[in-house]
Amino acid sequence: MNIKITGTGSYIPSTVEKNENFHQHEFLNTDGSTIKHPNEIIVKKFKAITGISERRYAKNHLNSSDLGFFAAEKAIEDANLDPETIDYIIVAHNFGDVKHNTIQSDLLPSLASRIKHSLRIKNPKCVAIDILFGCPGWVEGVIQAKAYIKSGMAKRCLVIGTETLSRVVDKHDRDAMIFSDGAGATIIEATDNDGGILAHETASFTYDEAYYLYFGKSNKQETVNDTRYMKMDGRKIYEFALTNVPQAMKTCLDNSGVSISEVKKIFIHQANEKMDEAILERFYKLYNLEAPEHVMPMSIHKLGNSSVATIPTLLDLVKRNQLENHELNAGDVIIFASVGAGMHINAIVYKY
Amino acid sequence: MNIKITGTGSYIPSTVEKNENFHQHEFLNTDGSTIKHPNEIIVKKFKAITGISERRYAKNHLNSSDLGFFAAEKAIEDANLDPETIDYIIVAHNFGDVKHNTIQSDLLPSLASRIKHSLRIKNPKCVAIDILFGCPGWVEGVIQAKAYIKSGMAKRCLVIGTETLSRVVDKHDRDAMIFSDGAGATIIEATDNDGGILAHETASFTYDEAYYLYFGKSNKQETVNDTRYMKMDGRKIYEFALTNVPQAMKTCLDNSGVSISEVKKIFIHQANEKMDEAILERFYKLYNLEAPEHVMPMSIHKLGNSSVATIPTLLDLVKRNQLENHELNAGDVIIFASVGAGMHINAIVYKY
Repeated sequence: MNIKITGTGSYIPSTVEKNENFHQHEFLNTDGSTIKHPNEIIVKKFKAITGISERRYAKNHLNSSDLGFFAAEKAIEDANLDPETIDYIIVAHNFGDVKHNTIQSDLLPSLASRIKHSLRIKNPKCVAIDILFGCPGWVEGVIQAKAYIKSGMAKRCLVIGTETLSRVVDKHDRDAMIFSDGAGATIIEATDNDGGILAHETASFTYDEAYYLYFGKSNKQETVNDTRYMKMDGRKIYEFALTNVPQAMKTCLDNSGVSISEVKKIFIHQANEKMDEAILERFYKLYNLEAPEHVMPMSIHKLGNSSVATIPTLLDLVKRNQLENHELNAGDVIIFASVGAGMHINAIVYKY
Repeated sequence: MNIKITGTGSYIPSTVEKNENFHQHEFLNTDGSTIKHPNEIIVKKFKAITGISERRYAKNHLNSSDLGFFAAEKAIEDANLDPETIDYIIVAHNFGDVKHNTIQSDLLPSLASRIKHSLRIKNPKCVAIDILFGCPGWVEGVIQAKAYIKSGMAKRCLVIGTETLSRVVDKHDRDAMIFSDGAGATIIEATDNDGGILAHETASFTYDEAYYLYFGKSNKQETVNDTRYMKMDGRKIYEFALTNVPQAMKTCLDNSGVSISEVKKIFIHQANEKMDEAILERFYKLYNLEAPEHVMPMSIHKLGNSSVATIPTLLDLVKRNQLENHELNAGDVIIFASVGAGMHINAIVYKY
């Protein structure tokens, strides 16, 4: 028995938020002091490092569970299956449904229940469960689906990553420009066909790293209210990722028994272009190789970092030939790799 | 290979909130109208139905992840193991860390990361993951641990249920009196010893039932702010539970191959004494039997409904002979059964 991705779908919100839209923001340092450079320079520097020129925001009336539902519908259609035959719906997110212009996370009921409700699935044996695992949540959801399938508890799982980070960013923080909204979904099934998940690797670094991403106050310190926002220590995360992600990818690839020369594509969490390039370079260096051209599809330029949504969205785009110089063919070995809040790292080696 | 609970621990907050403390509340109907009876009568009626005379609230400086950490420490000590050998930490909750006198859920990082951090576990191979599954979250966490162990992905899991519902209730809603704070933790391990998990059953009813518990406005309708609270349609939940929980328990018991006559204890989610008694009665009626005496340990009178924490806390209390007329002996067959937001139902038949 193999475990394969038999359907993909993504939802890319229609509202385009360009870098220019941040020119009027009052960006501040974490200590509340003003930044010396004009916003045009700040935004230019930001683009040079992250590669992001625009990102997508959900329409005001839509929430994270809506985005996840749209992506799920497409994945189900792509897999051409009866939704009543799904055994598990696993939804990865980080903040629940945060309605536009509100600050509360609506987690009652949890998002998997909402999405199953919207999909009009009646079968009560279809278990709808949420997981929180930072940006690597979708990859971890696939690993969880593997556990359910391998243990005989499921044959077919719908794994969704959905997020609306635009609603938890601090507009006085330059990092606000990184984050975006989106959803990706996949059907994961037991199959007798060749290929599928060859190996996986997960690690949670919490001893020193648990609060590298955290819920903190606005950089605008005179703000009287106690509202918290997504905050990160970018420098520490960068160093952490470069030290640990390439090694986790290597462990996973070595466990799969596949040679580095056979790897066709590497789908890395879209967090920061420079960081992703450095991870790729260090990964190949562990094999005394240089990274080949066109091995790492990138969506960050136009989509930003949509957390749990980035990898399944990227996979869906490549599968549908929407990214230049990237295609997938039967038998191709690919790697998924992610890093994020927790701090968690995970990877999957997969034969397409 | 069997899968057994090798350690338990619980944290019962020290602040006792008695029913009398609600005598000064301004209780309102959902439409905002005043309730005709004086509070003394409301509280008396409430006690007659739910059995609750007092409940526990966490100290102001403690959050859900702190409670979970305290319970986890005890479970690890009880199992007498090296925490560095734990493969998965699975934390079930519903609202994240809601700090006292705030309305935001702090989910960054997620609670399993916080608890692993507090436990000072260094091993990055110990994966720390949160699940959201309503009140049945701890039972579902045990089922998830079963999947990880059966699939060969783990040998030893720490499964925690932790919640501070006192921070998400509407003080103008009589239902506020039901909910409480607490945490329970268990070590779940692969073992060659006799017994363990014999069968499990999970069902998610979302077609009509997804929003029976929801995040809604205060009954105090003139309140200008948009703050949301935990809300429930008690009547629908009562009918739903009585219709579906006994049948799920029967399916689980029949799948385990154990006779009803062998069942020694039934640990039911502590939501409402009258409801739990009716579920028990209907369960035995499915076998044309009457419920035996002392088969259902109850903690609701003194502890209220602490959601994901109730069943592991109840198990821990009975194991430590803290509840009169209840004890556990090697070989005893017991059932765990839960129902809650989603709407989810689950059950485990377990040989102690």
